[in-house]
Amino acid sequence: MALLVQKFGGTAVGDPDRIRAVADHVARGVRSGDGVVVVVSAMGRETDDLLRLADGVSSARPGREMDMLITAGERKAMALLCMAIHEAGVPADSFTGSQAGFLTDTNHMNARILEVRPDRIRAALDEGRVPVVGGSQGVSTDNDVTFLGRGGSDTTAVALAHAIGADACELYTDVTGVFTADPRIVPAARRLSRISFDELLEMTATGCPKPSMRSVEYARAHRVRLHVRSAFTWQEGTWVEEEVPDMEQAIVSAVTHDLSEAKMTIAGVPDRPGVAARVFRALADLEVSVDMIVQNTSDHGVTDISFTVPHDELDRCLALVGELVAELGAAGVSSDTGIARVSVIGAGMRTNPGVAASMFETLSDLGINIQMISTSAIRVSCMVDADRVEEAVQALHGAFGLAEV
Amino acid sequence: MALLVQKFGGTAVGDPDRIRAVADHVARGVRSGDGVVVVVSAMGRETDDLLRLADGVSSARPGREMDMLITAGERKAMALLCMAIHEAGVPADSFTGSQAGFLTDTNHMNARILEVRPDRIRAALDEGRVPVVGGSQGVSTDNDVTFLGRGGSDTTAVALAHAIGADACELYTDVTGVFTADPRIVPAARRLSRISFDELLEMTATGCPKPSMRSVEYARAHRVRLHVRSAFTWQEGTWVEEEVPDMEQAIVSAVTHDLSEAKMTIAGVPDRPGVAARVFRALADLEVSVDMIVQNTSDHGVTDISFTVPHDELDRCLALVGELVAELGAAGVSSDTGIARVSVIGAGMRTNPGVAASMFETLSDLGINIQMISTSAIRVSCMVDADRVEEAVQALHGAFGLAEV
Repeated sequence: MALLVQKFGGTAVGDPDRIRAVADHVARGVRSGDGVVVVVSAMGRETDDLLRLADGVSSARPGREMDMLITAGERKAMALLCMAIHEAGVPADSFTGSQAGFLTDTNHMNARILEVRPDRIRAALDEGRVPVVGGSQGVSTDNDVTFLGRGGSDTTAVALAHAIGADACELYTDVTGVFTADPRIVPAARRLSRISFDELLEMTATGCPKPSMRSVEYARAHRVRLHVRSAFTWQEGTWVEEEVPDMEQAIVSAVTHDLSEAKMTIAGVPDRPGVAARVFRALADLEVSVDMIVQNTSDHGVTDISFTVPHDELDRCLALVGELVAELGAAGVSSDTGIARVSVIGAGMRTNPGVAASMFETLSDLGINIQMISTSAIRVSCMVDADRVEEAVQALHGAFGLAEV
Repeated sequence: MALLVQKFGGTAVGDPDRIRAVADHVARGVRSGDGVVVVVSAMGRETDDLLRLADGVSSARPGREMDMLITAGERKAMALLCMAIHEAGVPADSFTGSQAGFLTDTNHMNARILEVRPDRIRAALDEGRVPVVGGSQGVSTDNDVTFLGRGGSDTTAVALAHAIGADACELYTDVTGVFTADPRIVPAARRLSRISFDELLEMTATGCPKPSMRSVEYARAHRVRLHVRSAFTWQEGTWVEEEVPDMEQAIVSAVTHDLSEAKMTIAGVPDRPGVAARVFRALADLEVSVDMIVQNTSDHGVTDISFTVPHDELDRCLALVGELVAELGAAGVSSDTGIARVSVIGAGMRTNPGVAASMFETLSDLGINIQMISTSAIRVSCMVDADRVEEAVQALHGAFGLAEV
């Protein structure tokens, strides 16, 4: 008798067989008495296919047209899933982002949700019909179709769950939940039965690919309970909820890793106020997400500044910083793409000092050099050589006893 | 300095190379000073692919969801074409059927246009931008996405040309115009430089595949000048206009043929009033297009009724008529799928008797048996054995001198 939003990712609806399996699951939920609202992504690799088509005709990728193009993928998936739910004996209606009431800003390719007015969704539910909503889309204040960005379907699902007051938002994907580490690297990795919003947010920020970080932020801000689970086995997955203060916290809950960043170093920077501000304002104006900023102690009035940027932004960033080097009076700029970040995350870290020390010891025992370090209240991250990151993840997973139940 | 609607069919935009070629053509028109509005179909075989996907998940094909699904094809094409027109240096905006102002009834899969309110199209033109409209789609009076049916993009183009008062509607396709016969069968077939609405309407009703009959009807009713031409060679094609009364009419303009119909015969029908009405009302209720109805002279108070129905409706029709046979007191019902229709069409026929006789003589000389005959003021059609239809078309094309200029 719960009201649920169920979101299905691209692999969950990758072909007609998968779509029928998902439809059967939705129909089972409805028959058991639940109210179900479905959110669906584009099928399989469809979004990539559409982007490739766009590259075939356009170098500029005009935003309004890109959004019109890409959202066609979710429309296809939602119409097909709706037909399959009909076929499973349950009435269902598809809704575009616009029809579902997602009003966004005009920032094409990466629109932000301004408001959700789920009137048609509520009306469909009241009539006993399953609303099937196209993920990652809305209509802008200029009345144009907008796309919320890659991974935006998770955000659609969470925002809709909040707007209709759902009891939970189920994110169905191709893994069975959130794991203590990537199971492809650590075979002993264990599925977590529950995790806090804060921990999952740190995990998604440091390499855990699903759910999207933005959707976890939205869920955390609006206290929407998430259930990350498999669209293939349908078994219980990982619940994401607020921390229960009186519960015993695991000191470390998970080890994550991330190979998507490159390191930039500006060498011989004069150690005077305003230099860092100048560099990072310029990068911010490029809309680049800079992370792990490290400034060495000043030596004879000059210092080095290192930071990480996404791999695919590196060329733009090197060009920009290259221009700034003369203005700053720095010696030069260099980059390193052979790096990886490994992080340990756990809410229990707040009250248990020594996690960082244990982490450094573990890496040191393996002879793995730590190039950069950053920390938050519930996370410690180290930048290491990319070639050794899998070893590091495996060793840390063992060292913190994550395989044990 | 003309205001033109340019419609591009699926093969014209079948891949990124084709889309760029079309965009260059549109840009050339705009640079030469024309006002251009573009209507585009789904790419290549995309609509067939979408229908196949639907069959993979649904036996019922619910109309609302089918329309949501199929119209995704035109959205893709219009967004890509728009990007390519941008790339060619001309600003362009894509519009869905809804955004372009196509209000339709709620008859999904085959919606009728109720009204066209091209406000956003006019506004884009006024700003010097090229509107690119998704073909064959609209929004229903229930605020749902609707599809105008296969071949509906031609109708979208003609209706839009009428609504904005365009000087002409150019239908770009994979053939260079309207021919005196199918060039695949008659190598000597000649492209017509002009043809009347009435003649083209008869041609499309009897097997000429392009443009769609519905679009020709719309153009004829609203006097929208059509130009059927090639999206591959860009040469002048066939103009479709009103007849000029004082012009010398060709007695026969074209020979068409059609293999898409099957013949049904109800044998031993009591010859009394109301029998034909009972049969054809029942078929009309199935929404079957019945054609070429022939009733033989009564012999001893019973008669045979023969008529043609589309091949893909034959099973449904046989089932229905089978049920009626007892009620009517008829002897039985039979069908023949090995038939084809060959037709000669010409506005000059109105004032030149003897065309039918010449046609029958030509077929008789070849020993081709005529199974059924139907005529209009500007057309004579004969049903013949499907195996001999190519021979019949070739002979008639020669007999009426259509290869000569």
